Amino acid sequence: MTGILAGLRIVEGSAFIAAPLGGMTLAQLGADVIRFDDIKGGLDNDRWPITQDGRSIYWAGLNKGKRSIAVDLRSPRGRELLSALITAPGEGAGIFTTNMPARGWLAYEALAKKRADLIALNIVGARDGSAHVDYTVNAITGFPLVTGPVDHDGPVNAVAPPWDLATAYAGAMAILAAERHRRLTGQGQRIVLPLQDMALAATSALGYIGEAVINQVDRPRFGNEIFGTFGRDFKTRDGRFVMICIFSDRHVDALAAAGGFAEAFRKVEATKGVDLKTDAGRWNARAELCALIEPWVAAHTAAEIRTALKPPKTAPMLGQHTDEILSGILGLPDHEIAKLHDDKVIGGPR
Amino acid sequence: MTGILAGLRIVEGSAFIAAPLGGMTLAQLGADVIRFDDIKGGLDNDRWPITQDGRSIYWAGLNKGKRSIAVDLRSPRGRELLSALITAPGEGAGIFTTNMPARGWLAYEALAKKRADLIALNIVGARDGSAHVDYTVNAITGFPLVTGPVDHDGPVNAVAPPWDLATAYAGAMAILAAERHRRLTGQGQRIVLPLQDMALAATSALGYIGEAVINQVDRPRFGNEIFGTFGRDFKTRDGRFVMICIFSDRHVDALAAAGGFAEAFRKVEATKGVDLKTDAGRWNARAELCALIEPWVAAHTAAEIRTALKPPKTAPMLGQHTDEILSGILGLPDHEIAKLHDDKVIGGPR
Repeated sequence: MTGILAGLRIVEGSAFIAAPLGGMTLAQLGADVIRFDDIKGGLDNDRWPITQDGRSIYWAGLNKGKRSIAVDLRSPRGRELLSALITAPGEGAGIFTTNMPARGWLAYEALAKKRADLIALNIVGARDGSAHVDYTVNAITGFPLVTGPVDHDGPVNAVAPPWDLATAYAGAMAILAAERHRRLTGQGQRIVLPLQDMALAATSALGYIGEAVINQVDRPRFGNEIFGTFGRDFKTRDGRFVMICIFSDRHVDALAAAGGFAEAFRKVEATKGVDLKTDAGRWNARAELCALIEPWVAAHTAAEIRTALKPPKTAPMLGQHTDEILSGILGLPDHEIAKLHDDKVIGGPR
Repeated sequence: MTGILAGLRIVEGSAFIAAPLGGMTLAQLGADVIRFDDIKGGLDNDRWPITQDGRSIYWAGLNKGKRSIAVDLRSPRGRELLSALITAPGEGAGIFTTNMPARGWLAYEALAKKRADLIALNIVGARDGSAHVDYTVNAITGFPLVTGPVDHDGPVNAVAPPWDLATAYAGAMAILAAERHRRLTGQGQRIVLPLQDMALAATSALGYIGEAVINQVDRPRFGNEIFGTFGRDFKTRDGRFVMICIFSDRHVDALAAAGGFAEAFRKVEATKGVDLKTDAGRWNARAELCALIEPWVAAHTAAEIRTALKPPKTAPMLGQHTDEILSGILGLPDHEIAKLHDDKVIGGPR
């Protein structure tokens, strides 16, 4: 595979999600990514889901496009081979990523003796070196206590692991930032990227920490509602669920048109003293909006709701818009259009 | 602020999460990131949470370290100024990121006429150009139907937005990949990054699509359990929750030691015919493991559980380990150690 990152070579000693996904992303963009594992397979070698003959679908998913080298990680000769591979010469080589403990023969100091401009990315659990996975980091952020049904007691975990995903792509970015720096200055570096720091930095970026510190409020559980604007899931007549969100003026109008809510929306605005064209207005009137939308969705199938909100662009019937076009664009009065029909000058439904 | 990306200049026309978070990350690494907005503020200008005087904490969180330029986006003169800014000369300049519709004067073709080597990142909802946010993309992945309590009917949304986070960092990575390519070849490029593609690519990487296709199974809802190994939340005596995960042999032993489960674990292995040192063994015996762990956690406070699993490294009492050291390292027999105590050669508890 060639690609935009052709010329880069990355040696990866990894397990689980963040490190292998970051490496796979670079491989998919054209880098030569060599994953090394112990001769018996790494911690994630057999991880579920597995196929009927016992091969890990999980492992396959996270390592596409890489090359694999298997070595006895306990043998001095095996370690020598990998040290040599990690520190091999070449302008785009000398890049090492790992989420295993980078100690002893894998420590930056040891490897940098063989290649002074080495770039090493070490993804760790927490800054103090303690072990963490997405699920334990997520517990620390507090998100499990604001995720899930409003009346639920206890934490609700994320199934799609947000912090592993963020760390994977941020790690890939860090490699490219360091490689740019090395190209410009000749200097390599060690990058330590803690999963926990990624999670807390993102939690801060999303305003949760600022809200707690500045406004002194503890964000409650809002179920599936999108905080600060309008969005929620609704159940359709055929037992499916649709997610309806309003993020702009245009969405308010589209929903009003689709469900025939224009008049009802005006009443909500008057009664609640809000402007539905603002995020705050929609958030403050969300109960009233839900009361309108719920029965409408419940009375229709998912396909009908989809068509109402995103009308399909089908071919028209012959002459379907004749009257609309002559009236709307040419401004012809109804009686004149009727006469043109009578005279068989124009066609289409009347 | 200086940093590893000093020398890069990025002009950003953004709203919501993915584009501004990606830009902020580059700014925090030292790039000069200039965010432009309409003179009246963008779509996310007032987004909640807000302070008591109405300033958006959300906006502040996602734009730290950037410079801001406000321009009337409808005026021809304003558009001219921004086009000139985006395409201004300079080796590290000529980079434009946006998650707004990049049409008309903001289209790549229009801007590339002024700077042929322009790099433009356009984060879109879906590949066909349709609008999406994290919440609607998440619905498409299917994750809401496998997230949340096992007995819950209906979808459970992620509160920490996984696809926005992934797209933010992947977008920042894409900018650096394109900048490397431009440095090596002189060529710029347009990058289109759909939120929906990011979500589906990550869902595939995590093995969910492979599992459905190859094994023909529909992953059910497993609540807070970590699929394919052992991990779950448990409630403590003081009403708090701890997340206990086992990802390695070492964790099995640590948990057995902390809770006195060694014998019980052996019984589980014999009864269920599993090896708890494997992921599959733990997953298949998870009900039995939970039955052991639940009462243990329920009988202790969160602090006690923490201490049991991660014994704090405190200073020892004077001579606390005298006997252990002489016996363990020097191999002295008990009667000899006793005699040394009697002779007052050594001290510490007997």
